[in-house]
Amino acid sequence: MADYVFGVDIGGTTVKLGLFDTQGSVLDKWEIPTRTENGGVSILPDIAGSVQDKMRERGIAAGDVAGVGVGAPGPVDGDGVIHKAVNLGWGEMNLKKELGALLGGMRVEGGNDANVAALGEMWKGGGQGYRNLVAVTLGTGVGGGIIIGGKIMTGATGSGGEIGHIHVEDHESEACGCGNYGCLEEYASATGITRLANRRLQASDKDSVLRQGEVSAKTVFDAVKAGDALAVEVAEQFGEYLGKGLAVIAGVVNPEIFVIGGGVSRAGEVLFRYIRPVFDRTVFHGCKDTKFALATLGNDAGIYGAARMVLD
Amino acid sequence: MADYVFGVDIGGTTVKLGLFDTQGSVLDKWEIPTRTENGGVSILPDIAGSVQDKMRERGIAAGDVAGVGVGAPGPVDGDGVIHKAVNLGWGEMNLKKELGALLGGMRVEGGNDANVAALGEMWKGGGQGYRNLVAVTLGTGVGGGIIIGGKIMTGATGSGGEIGHIHVEDHESEACGCGNYGCLEEYASATGITRLANRRLQASDKDSVLRQGEVSAKTVFDAVKAGDALAVEVAEQFGEYLGKGLAVIAGVVNPEIFVIGGGVSRAGEVLFRYIRPVFDRTVFHGCKDTKFALATLGNDAGIYGAARMVLD
Repeated sequence: MADYVFGVDIGGTTVKLGLFDTQGSVLDKWEIPTRTENGGVSILPDIAGSVQDKMRERGIAAGDVAGVGVGAPGPVDGDGVIHKAVNLGWGEMNLKKELGALLGGMRVEGGNDANVAALGEMWKGGGQGYRNLVAVTLGTGVGGGIIIGGKIMTGATGSGGEIGHIHVEDHESEACGCGNYGCLEEYASATGITRLANRRLQASDKDSVLRQGEVSAKTVFDAVKAGDALAVEVAEQFGEYLGKGLAVIAGVVNPEIFVIGGGVSRAGEVLFRYIRPVFDRTVFHGCKDTKFALATLGNDAGIYGAARMVLD
Repeated sequence: MADYVFGVDIGGTTVKLGLFDTQGSVLDKWEIPTRTENGGVSILPDIAGSVQDKMRERGIAAGDVAGVGVGAPGPVDGDGVIHKAVNLGWGEMNLKKELGALLGGMRVEGGNDANVAALGEMWKGGGQGYRNLVAVTLGTGVGGGIIIGGKIMTGATGSGGEIGHIHVEDHESEACGCGNYGCLEEYASATGITRLANRRLQASDKDSVLRQGEVSAKTVFDAVKAGDALAVEVAEQFGEYLGKGLAVIAGVVNPEIFVIGGGVSRAGEVLFRYIRPVFDRTVFHGCKDTKFALATLGNDAGIYGAARMVLD
């Protein structure tokens, strides 16, 4: 029986690494830079070196390690192959095989970073105790990860859970980063909330604290908490889009719980006040009991989930 | 190795039964009435009796049968327990256990009828060769079944794939059968297409063959094929709702293929002319290659899928 497992979360500038015991307690965590130059050719060797250094440092033998799980930003298929990780400079990369070889045949599992973070929240975060969950990350964009029966749902081409790009608005003139118009991400991300707020500030004569200083998802929800009427209208709009979007997702995959994370989720439970009534109004009755919780692992969700992948 | 498998599809008036070899060739199929009186207490004994009669008739021993798969109209959880099958008079019924006992301990698997039909289309129908598919049944209502990695996605409470009740229209004054307003089923089912057509006939002065005689999904698509301009407008509206709905579903579960069945699908490939452009316009780019096909098993999809459930 192995005692240890590594979780690795590859980001565009930093690789996060964690050493865990197989019960999910984190024993150590650290970071190395992501060297994206030359088509990202150094990224996996850097990770392998860092894992091996840690093993030497702690006197851990290869036989004591269950394996290394890796989350990466891009679509990862069921075989652990990542396709077009543009932020890393990679075309197609077989994470499982390449990193496994660098680690002398150690077991490696790979997954998309958002999906892996969802698994982390299931294991040790806001979704603990559940086996069917949808993790929603409200950050610069909107990401998602779907866990069914305790396993990541990758989808046919690794695009499972790409819920930021579900179409929710027919009348949008500004394109989403993905090229489409009217994606959920355009209204429910930090950037999206800022957009909604700026549009409303322009369209309305109403006084608001948002007219003084910076407009951001944070200042909007701070203003909501302070009772600012215009900010409340923005939050209601945000809730309309996200509540309806999550209701559709519930009707499709019927999760036990939604776990909401990302920078926007720092606003806290107030989010649910705007999401939940819209969700309840539009969701299929068989899914009305779906729970909502906040993510709790923050930026560590990725290393937790990556480690968890190896333990199946 | 067992040579045979039974597939059973319980409907509100008729139970369909099929005897298959384990390769999926149907050797025999027949029907018995569904006796829903007295809380449906006779349904499972009737099925058990009919299966045993067939085994006697053909000289099949229990050891030659891999098991009996059952599809039933209602949410069925991962343990084969059906909850509130109102059409059958059942409250909660453990299909697996109850029918298994009636059959002397034979293996029984249970699933929701729409999900089971999806599995049938994967095995021997329009989705043959795929492991990740969404089956869409456009009948009196809109049903769905989602297959991920060759397995039915039941969801947390058996409501996985209830795609007829995803919210697609904010401005609907007529309630759906489920109690909500603006469900996909209100526009994409046979009844929904008729509703769209009647509304358009009322709102427009345009001449149309639909003004003579019965308005139905069939007459609408017959008129589309004959080049009727108003019928084309109805088909475009249908395509807007269904194309956008399926694009959202694709962004969530990322299937390889949609398999479209049910009475409306008898209109044939013409449906795709109205669904596909809307799908392509609104779907996430990672899902643009999703295929569309027509279901091919018709009313037999249920017995095929039920039998297939037992072969895992």
